[in-house]
Amino acid sequence: MSIGTCYFPEHWPSERWETDVQQMADAGLEYVRMGEFAWARLEPERGEFDFEWLETALEYIDDQGMQAVLCTPTATPPRWLVDDHPDMLQEEPDGTTREFGGRRHYCFNSEAYALETDRIVTRLAERFADHPVVAGWQTDNEYGCHGTIRCYCDDCSAAFSEWLQDRYGDIETLNEAWGTTFWSQRYDDFDQIQPPRHSAASQHPSLLLDYYRFSSDSAVAYNERQVDILREANDDWFVTHNFMSHFGPLDAYDVSESLDFASWDSYPTGHVQVQAQGEPSTDEYLVGSPDVTGLDHDLYRSAANAPFWVMEQQPGDINWPPYSPQPPEGAMRLWAHHAVAHGADSVVYFRWRRCRQGQEQYHAGLLEADGSPDRGYADAADAAADLESLPDLEGPEASVAILHEYDNLWALNIQPHAPEFDYWAHLETYYRALRERGVTVDIVPPTRDLDDYAAVVAPTLHLVDDELATQLTEYVESGGNLLLTMRSGVKDRANQLLNEPAPGPLADLVGATVDAHEAPHPDQERTLEYDGETFDYRVWDEWLEPDTATVTGTHQSGTAADTPAITTNDVGDGRVRYCGIWPEDELADALVTDLLEDANVATTPEPLPANVRAIERNGYSWVMNFTGEERTLSLPANASVVVGSDTIPAYDLAVVDTPVTDLEVE
Amino acid sequence: MSIGTCYFPEHWPSERWETDVQQMADAGLEYVRMGEFAWARLEPERGEFDFEWLETALEYIDDQGMQAVLCTPTATPPRWLVDDHPDMLQEEPDGTTREFGGRRHYCFNSEAYALETDRIVTRLAERFADHPVVAGWQTDNEYGCHGTIRCYCDDCSAAFSEWLQDRYGDIETLNEAWGTTFWSQRYDDFDQIQPPRHSAASQHPSLLLDYYRFSSDSAVAYNERQVDILREANDDWFVTHNFMSHFGPLDAYDVSESLDFASWDSYPTGHVQVQAQGEPSTDEYLVGSPDVTGLDHDLYRSAANAPFWVMEQQPGDINWPPYSPQPPEGAMRLWAHHAVAHGADSVVYFRWRRCRQGQEQYHAGLLEADGSPDRGYADAADAAADLESLPDLEGPEASVAILHEYDNLWALNIQPHAPEFDYWAHLETYYRALRERGVTVDIVPPTRDLDDYAAVVAPTLHLVDDELATQLTEYVESGGNLLLTMRSGVKDRANQLLNEPAPGPLADLVGATVDAHEAPHPDQERTLEYDGETFDYRVWDEWLEPDTATVTGTHQSGTAADTPAITTNDVGDGRVRYCGIWPEDELADALVTDLLEDANVATTPEPLPANVRAIERNGYSWVMNFTGEERTLSLPANASVVVGSDTIPAYDLAVVDTPVTDLEVE
Amino acid sequence: MSIGTCYFPEHWPSERWETDVQQMADAGLEYVRMGEFAWARLEPERGEFDFEWLETALEYIDDQGMQAVLCTPTATPPRWLVDDHPDMLQEEPDGTTREFGGRRHYCFNSEAYALETDRIVTRLAERFADHPVVAGWQTDNEYGCHGTIRCYCDDCSAAFSEWLQDRYGDIETLNEAWGTTFWSQRYDDFDQIQPPRHSAASQHPSLLLDYYRFSSDSAVAYNERQVDILREANDDWFVTHNFMSHFGPLDAYDVSESLDFASWDSYPTGHVQVQAQGEPSTDEYLVGSPDVTGLDHDLYRSAANAPFWVMEQQPGDINWPPYSPQPPEGAMRLWAHHAVAHGADSVVYFRWRRCRQGQEQYHAGLLEADGSPDRGYADAADAAADLESLPDLEGPEASVAILHEYDNLWALNIQPHAPEFDYWAHLETYYRALRERGVTVDIVPPTRDLDDYAAVVAPTLHLVDDELATQLTEYVESGGNLLLTMRSGVKDRANQLLNEPAPGPLADLVGATVDAHEAPHPDQERTLEYDGETFDYRVWDEWLEPDTATVTGTHQSGTAADTPAITTNDVGDGRVRYCGIWPEDELADALVTDLLEDANVATTPEPLPANVRAIERNGYSWVMNFTGEERTLSLPANASVVVGSDTIPAYDLAVVDTPVTDLEVE
Repeated sequence: MSIGTCYFPEHWPSERWETDVQQMADAGLEYVRMGEFAWARLEPERGEFDFEWLETALEYIDDQGMQAVLCTPTATPPRWLVDDHPDMLQEEPDGTTREFGGRRHYCFNSEAYALETDRIVTRLAERFADHPVVAGWQTDNEYGCHGTIRCYCDDCSAAFSEWLQDRYGDIETLNEAWGTTFWSQRYDDFDQIQPPRHSAASQHPSLLLDYYRFSSDSAVAYNERQVDILREANDDWFVTHNFMSHFGPLDAYDVSESLDFASWDSYPTGHVQVQAQGEPSTDEYLVGSPDVTGLDHDLYRSAANAPFWVMEQQPGDINWPPYSPQPPEGAMRLWAHHAVAHGADSVVYFRWRRCRQGQEQYHAGLLEADGSPDRGYADAADAAADLESLPDLEGPEASVAILHEYDNLWALNIQPHAPEFDYWAHLETYYRALRERGVTVDIVPPTRDLDDYAAVVAPTLHLVDDELATQLTEYVESGGNLLLTMRSGVKDRANQLLNEPAPGPLADLVGATVDAHEAPHPDQERTLEYDGETFDYRVWDEWLEPDTATVTGTHQSGTAADTPAITTNDVGDGRVRYCGIWPEDELADALVTDLLEDANVATTPEPLPANVRAIERNGYSWVMNFTGEERTLSLPANASVVVGSDTIPAYDLAVVDTPVTDLEVE
Repeated sequence: MSIGTCYFPEHWPSERWETDVQQMADAGLEYVRMGEFAWARLEPERGEFDFEWLETALEYIDDQGMQAVLCTPTATPPRWLVDDHPDMLQEEPDGTTREFGGRRHYCFNSEAYALETDRIVTRLAERFADHPVVAGWQTDNEYGCHGTIRCYCDDCSAAFSEWLQDRYGDIETLNEAWGTTFWSQRYDDFDQIQPPRHSAASQHPSLLLDYYRFSSDSAVAYNERQVDILREANDDWFVTHNFMSHFGPLDAYDVSESLDFASWDSYPTGHVQVQAQGEPSTDEYLVGSPDVTGLDHDLYRSAANAPFWVMEQQPGDINWPPYSPQPPEGAMRLWAHHAVAHGADSVVYFRWRRCRQGQEQYHAGLLEADGSPDRGYADAADAAADLESLPDLEGPEASVAILHEYDNLWALNIQPHAPEFDYWAHLETYYRALRERGVTVDIVPPTRDLDDYAAVVAPTLHLVDDELATQLTEYVESGGNLLLTMRSGVKDRANQLLNEPAPGPLADLVGATVDAHEAPHPDQERTLEYDGETFDYRVWDEWLEPDTATVTGTHQSGTAADTPAITTNDVGDGRVRYCGIWPEDELADALVTDLLEDANVATTPEPLPANVRAIERNGYSWVMNFTGEERTLSLPANASVVVGSDTIPAYDLAVVDTPVTDLEVE
Repeated sequence: MSIGTCYFPEHWPSERWETDVQQMADAGLEYVRMGEFAWARLEPERGEFDFEWLETALEYIDDQGMQAVLCTPTATPPRWLVDDHPDMLQEEPDGTTREFGGRRHYCFNSEAYALETDRIVTRLAERFADHPVVAGWQTDNEYGCHGTIRCYCDDCSAAFSEWLQDRYGDIETLNEAWGTTFWSQRYDDFDQIQPPRHSAASQHPSLLLDYYRFSSDSAVAYNERQVDILREANDDWFVTHNFMSHFGPLDAYDVSESLDFASWDSYPTGHVQVQAQGEPSTDEYLVGSPDVTGLDHDLYRSAANAPFWVMEQQPGDINWPPYSPQPPEGAMRLWAHHAVAHGADSVVYFRWRRCRQGQEQYHAGLLEADGSPDRGYADAADAAADLESLPDLEGPEASVAILHEYDNLWALNIQPHAPEFDYWAHLETYYRALRERGVTVDIVPPTRDLDDYAAVVAPTLHLVDDELATQLTEYVESGGNLLLTMRSGVKDRANQLLNEPAPGPLADLVGATVDAHEAPHPDQERTLEYDGETFDYRVWDEWLEPDTATVTGTHQSGTAADTPAITTNDVGDGRVRYCGIWPEDELADALVTDLLEDANVATTPEPLPANVRAIERNGYSWVMNFTGEERTLSLPANASVVVGSDTIPAYDLAVVDTPVTDLEVE
């Protein structure tokens, strides 16, 4: 549990470096990330390598007893390299080239660029393989940033044909799987299939889903190529990649398979503006939402099933969201604790010093552009001191899993069900309900072993095959508690509708089928009765036809009135709930509370206040206040406050040596 | 007056077909539309034709005593065909190709594709020419869907030059007609003229209007080529085309000239979301607006001056509008009656069974994807039974015409007068006022013979030449009642402003000219006095200078205050009204009521309630309730209810054997 | 002080010309602008020139004792010329060609087009060099209209490389200045540098700023080429260019260096809709905002430091803004007076007669399309008569300057600080505060000699070098009063952040530095205390750290609470204020009032009412009422009303023979 920072010595005079590293050490930082984007500095001309500056920086780091994380510089191929391979640039669906001038200007399927990648990564890996200060590597940077997972160039077209050939074997199998009889889309040969370039009508959803898979796979393969080289040079250093917040075009589980652990880049005030549904609150503009950020912590901890890193932690005001209020006093410390509470091993602030040049000038660092400490420096030092005072902790251990699969996200994005129907927003509804009760949640793919989870929530499990149905049935039969939600079991893996009514292969498990569904306009009020109470819902509803299931929720409004909306089915030693609507928060809380009760998952005695969250690691609990009001913590007699106090100021936190289930916050 | 359905046997195992057709027969369906989009199935490889599957399906249909409508499959050329002629694809104004992957991926001016079209249509026509079950043909599908009427490729460029040469003869005539002295746009040769591709400033409005005409003509010519082949093979079967709702880039009158009758594809809950001004009401989200849908019924009945077909009738929830609430109980039956009441010969539900594959998976059918009846199946069967119980009826007969010309729509779209100035919305204002009084309306081009109409409403008759002025004058002189509206008589056929003040050649007829005009901002309140009462108006106003006309409406607000806004002029045996503003509904009702009184057009005693509409066919009247509330119908003593009862439930209807003018609805 | 009109004789039969010119003379017009856009008429085929029609028109003008302004026709190269040089067309960032069909379809860096330009301008200049009626020339038309300053074609790419080589000498200097180490953007050669074409991530801000400069310089050089030819033919006639309202991609100061005076095209009801922050008021829809229009008058008077012309004056309703209400009675006269009051030598109405053809049909003229006077004709005649009654006047003389530099506008546009952070809107806040007090303002670049200004307001002086800092310090030391605002002294000329905290080289002058800054969301209320009162602010705030300065304003809200926001510093004989926030109007008024008091700048006794403005020329004051309500003017005993009366009707004005500081308006 440590703090670090991202450092670009190449942006500053070498005379300054020693001072910089000294300042880092003074703040208690333990890791320095370097080398990202430095290709033009590492290889100014083809074959003319200059690694000395980096070694010099490593020496200063060594002098202070700190460690370094190096990055492969492949996110920014230099101009001379692009001039040698103009075809390596990506293309838009309309054929426009994505030119040099920013970053991420390369196609994952350019063999020329892959060879250049091998060359620079090999050189770097070999040079630093025995360097004692280098703890590990970050590959590239934020795959997919600026919409670069999907490219539409000829190299991608050829690679897509090959990928399809591998997947389907022969073209008739593909025609059958996709259903190309529709609109005479039949292919005679894999070579005929192109990326979903600009067309008058929308493209075939089965082609689109496979193109999304192929695009993700292309990035995964590109990354593995780097990982293999790095591991070959030194099997002891770690290899990670810094993901972005849960956006979607890249399958983080697939990438993580070859990593030691996953990292991600956390900018709470940016994510909440870009990703939150609706208008953020003032508090959320100032410090973000603990659930938007927390979901990522949990996702990337779960991705590699290992403690994660925050490889870039917001250090103050940032340049890319619409608004950039100054984070309040202590916010940068709160964020570091939030990450650690969710299982981060290290929190690395980005960047050390505000950069004077280029696209990120209006992004703060721990230091000002003039080299003096900015507001984040003190927070980082405080966080480092706090962590120093804590023992090393295991966990957190999740008793509940949320099932998340990129295929479902993609399929729903390809054919949106309604303007407000957003995959992540629906998932977050359940995540928020769980976190409001202090429950630790893993975000895992359905293929994970679920046996250790007392309860599983599967929001919108859209694409389902028999294998998955069997797996979930076994989970429930052996005592598991499963909550399935609307639009599950609708499609097969090729993005075809199933022959049978939803939830398709899950129908026996659920004990009910879907009779009809609709996407009402937001102005059409929608209510249902659940457990004797009336609740609002929105966006989507289904009319269920129960078989073995018991009806627990019934529509009260609209054409659906009096039809079943929510069911419960006991299967073996377990229980399955199916919720055929998109609940507002109150109904989500009711559903989740009932699920947890069945599953004997302990929770906080009362729901936590909005934007106050708690999580437990190995007997220690963090209580984090993402609001502008002071909070009071009630503890059992035998518990003590390890960090902070039982009065938690605005945007502050406490760590206590007792489980979350003991806590009351007011 | 019959019911049918759209069937794609090729999407399902052949073992199922007999069951499908049996289910259709059980529901009382009489027509099965097939073959649309099936090119790749009909000709899997060049020259290898496979029509047997279609013949098999026809046999099942024959067995049930039903008939088939076949479609030419030209909306979806297969991949192999596109590979043979890559230049056949359309292009955007910026040169981007509209690629294979959806549908409608061909240019109307590709000679290569025209020859391919000849080839497949000839084959199909010859094969089925003597088939007893084939009642007729639908050419292609929804010309212009996905914005494909206008293409900007080199083939279109060359064809446009030729089209212009045909129209203008020599280039000086064109230069004069267009006014190319403006901005030095002079052409020396027809070959120099290009489609209105991307340019920094907007393109010349005369070129644009001719390009819009040319584009429509290109589709018309392409269609005629198919029609000729089909007629040559068999002169007895009917040929039609399925138009889309009134959108505009294609001149439906021109296309209809070669058809036996026009058809259109009716999706009430979609059209109301896409086309209605302002936010639809809850009822309109559920069943659409009877005036939005009714206008199309009347337009396409008028287009070929013949009973029309609804070739695709919404069967339940659909995939393409933003929201898809489930239509309420009986809505699918109500829509069929609505079409028949407006003169439809047949109403063909799209589609038979929800498709498991491709772009339209979330579009309902009469059957679910699993083959069981969906909610629309019972409605379709009910509608078929209702129609069976009625005699064959003539009509409806319209005593009022609304003049509609695509040139005016296009000219106003090319140079919009204000953000809210929408040609259709303005026309619909008058249509709604007429329909609220139970009046039957034809939507005809000004070139039609108007003698049989007691009254004519001409909204925004923008482009006027002497011939049209003469024709309208003759109509009025011989006793006709004409209502002309704002922005009429402004331009010549080449989209030049006329030399004289508006309404140009109509000035003598109107007895007034337009002194000034303006497009006030919506926040500027606008009122006028008409017939002693004060009314609001909006969007546009003109200040009239009466000559022989009497002023009946006077501006009360803004810079226009105290100037004339509405006039009446007696000419020969008739009367002409000119309304120089865009009326709100109340003023539109007052204007229309006065017009109908002069014209001795009988109406319902009272205005019909909102979204309740009535229409008469040959002594029988339909009263249709597009609202969620029960309605009560008062009938004369000698009248009886033939379908339904005099209490009309929500979303239901009654048919009575008495004229509309006898009815009162509460 | 005269009135003129823009005339296109080539659009009308030659038989009409004499009448037209007679009508102009009748209205008292003195200047006729012609020849604009007439290339295809002047040279119908290559080398076949036809100037006779223009000579004929000049003769009619001569007959009436009027004078002509001729225009070079280069904004509209004819079709045949474009066919000869297809590469002369501009390109979009994505490579799409900006095709023929509108206007401005040429690239400033096309050498082929430059030679064609030389050819036609030389011919015209030589032909009319000795013509007594030709008073002067307008070059081209509205450089940059339709977004045409910036082009992305290969010619521009090559020219940009050369421009950079000229600016930086060697590539290492550029790399250093831009900071290309960031994201490995290093260049080895100037030839490698491309325009900022479409890329996935945003382009480097230093490249962007230089591209913006280069693009403006390209237009400046193109213009100078024309100016040189015109001057070579006749050194006595004037040469000007007609700029557009303050939009930005073209540096008007640079263009003006080679002009005798600047002109601009004034469309008050259009500018206010396109440029105003927030929704215009009803009055502003009708007559525009006197400050939006006034700022342009002052900008273009200052640009060449000479009396300016309004080369196109709105004559009535116009075609290009969203809404076009009719200007109220007298508005066209008010606008002419407004221009003259701000120092216009001539006001030329555009256009003489509404054009029947092409893109501007819905743009009024002084005459209707039919040749009869439209509403503007009488206003123009009235304005001409008014001016005839006044003596020739010097001035106005400004005692206050607002510093404006295109580099700052561009840098802030390249990296916007917040959605509402608009350079012009911020500048206008201070301009409005000054004009509300009747103060005459020059809008000058910081490089101008400031000695004659009692006070200088420098809004967002973003890019500052030592030379500028020295200049401003000298100004203050010698007694000047300077108001600097937020985000000043942030960057160097290459668009790099400065090494020191803002305001960088201005820190000593200001006596304070910026400790932190933020862009709060509009929902976060922001207040500060200034001079004992509480004021709201918005968009941006800074937390200041005073050194020698006195704190006069202190934050009261948010994370910034209690930190300094506004300071005052006495330096030498002068005083410097720094305002670290974006004030609402009330605070802007307080700041400006204090500044003017220090500077002994006399003002109106009370703030003028909203949209009522006054300005003084050489002892005469115009009081202009841009509102719908009558205003009353209180005058000193010895003053008299020269035009109008002391009761000023709606949208009217008065001219009085007394300074502004004597006036009270109610």
